Amino acid sequence: MIIEKKGISLELAERMIDAAEKKAKDMGVPVVIAVVDEGGSLKALRRMDGAPLLSVDIAINKAWTAVAFGIPTHEWYEMIKNDPPLLHGIVHTPRLIIFGGGYPIHYNGQLIGGIGVSGGTSQQDMECAKAGLEVVKKLEGSN
Amino acid sequence: MIIEKKGISLELAERMIDAAEKKAKDMGVPVVIAVVDEGGSLKALRRMDGAPLLSVDIAINKAWTAVAFGIPTHEWYEMIKNDPPLLHGIVHTPRLIIFGGGYPIHYNGQLIGGIGVSGGTSQQDMECAKAGLEVVKKLEGSN
Amino acid sequence: MIIEKKGISLELAERMIDAAEKKAKDMGVPVVIAVVDEGGSLKALRRMDGAPLLSVDIAINKAWTAVAFGIPTHEWYEMIKNDPPLLHGIVHTPRLIIFGGGYPIHYNGQLIGGIGVSGGTSQQDMECAKAGLEVVKKLEGSN
Amino acid sequence: MIIEKKGISLELAERMIDAAEKKAKDMGVPVVIAVVDEGGSLKALRRMDGAPLLSVDIAINKAWTAVAFGIPTHEWYEMIKNDPPLLHGIVHTPRLIIFGGGYPIHYNGQLIGGIGVSGGTSQQDMECAKAGLEVVKKLEGSN
Repeated sequence: MIIEKKGISLELAERMIDAAEKKAKDMGVPVVIAVVDEGGSLKALRRMDGAPLLSVDIAINKAWTAVAFGIPTHEWYEMIKNDPPLLHGIVHTPRLIIFGGGYPIHYNGQLIGGIGVSGGTSQQDMECAKAGLEVVKKLEGSN
Repeated sequence: MIIEKKGISLELAERMIDAAEKKAKDMGVPVVIAVVDEGGSLKALRRMDGAPLLSVDIAINKAWTAVAFGIPTHEWYEMIKNDPPLLHGIVHTPRLIIFGGGYPIHYNGQLIGGIGVSGGTSQQDMECAKAGLEVVKKLEGSN
Repeated sequence: MIIEKKGISLELAERMIDAAEKKAKDMGVPVVIAVVDEGGSLKALRRMDGAPLLSVDIAINKAWTAVAFGIPTHEWYEMIKNDPPLLHGIVHTPRLIIFGGGYPIHYNGQLIGGIGVSGGTSQQDMECAKAGLEVVKKLEGSN
Repeated sequence: MIIEKKGISLELAERMIDAAEKKAKDMGVPVVIAVVDEGGSLKALRRMDGAPLLSVDIAINKAWTAVAFGIPTHEWYEMIKNDPPLLHGIVHTPRLIIFGGGYPIHYNGQLIGGIGVSGGTSQQDMECAKAGLEVVKKLEGSN
């Protein structure tokens, strides 16, 4: 009756943010990067100089949305666009973000957290977040 | 960089609530019993017939407080009563409950969730919650 | 590691509001005018006699939105109208206003605050806010 | 009518958090460390492994309180304890923290942000936050 789980350490969260920040610098886009644990609580956050104030909560909520439903935030719109009650209804869920930039963090198939990036276009935010996810993939590969 | 954790299953949460509810029935006190996981999210809840509406949120917040800080809620007052800034300050923290009825759920030393009971006196609520915790102790012993 | 910034003084905020109010009087439209600093905190506000109560929060949030993302509020719809996930999603961001009447305040290229006007049509609100921005332009020119 | 200001960079915020985290490790106390800019918006945050969930919002709010009034959070109680209307009233202000662990960040006399630490005793939290402030003092001295 006890579930074995895996969780994200601060060290891993920081390495993911390092990678996302590097990608953002390469693109010249200041962003906010947030990582939450598997329970949705904030683990680490960085707001790059020049990133919009608006992006702080959006980045946190992208990370939260990703871990709270287990799919990337950009998949939400595809999932609800032909279902009018959802399209007009579920979008009002507090903290739910339905555009790109949030990804669940999986380690060997287990959901261990979420990463959210905000400040650029959805595409740029997604690029940065994916750079963060690469850190986890390398970690899996190294086992 | 990956943390090994243990979590509470729904089956265990329900058995804990069974035990707490039985204790409440024995005492003739209708209560609300809530169990949250180690991230603070609600796992299961029962409001017995006749339990006060007020108790729903209080039970949830007792369980949340217990897992969010790792100590039983009744220990808060002892901890802050001689520290005036805390006594007048930390009590305003949203969701924080400083009276009895909430307990962290530990399994072999690991924090796996929280249980909160509300509806009776603090003493009665604590009795019910402790009946729930007994289920986990037996589980540990059986390993 | 220290960033040099410029901020808006109360005197400047008041002069901007004077100009916006004069424009509103010329048009015969009572409005609410709000100015926030570069951190998004309210610096000054005036609600003209007869302006709708509804406009108080809208004016504040227009000013806040403008400084929180650095673009005029009326540009939001153009930016998101062909991007359905944003159109259905980002509009739910708390405090975000996507219609006209909010402008970032720039001084020599630096973002120093935001001005928001509400009470008339979007077009009228924009006219009033732009009258406020003229004060800053003259100030730049006089240096 | 334009105010010259100084702001905190992400690099400085991170170095402050590095120092606070090192102090927390030396003391063996897992904490949450948050830094906000002079407008009160979150700049960076780290939650050390094992730090209580409850501490995330408290750390952020300590940093916010510090910059929002310009004094360390532990000075609040001394200031209000003999003024019953404040003691029973102002403590209800949303986000206001009146116990130790939050400090304004000054650079050459200018308020540029706030740092907040939560997870240990007030005294431990204060030690960690002060370790962060040392980074700024050295920066001043090096000019």
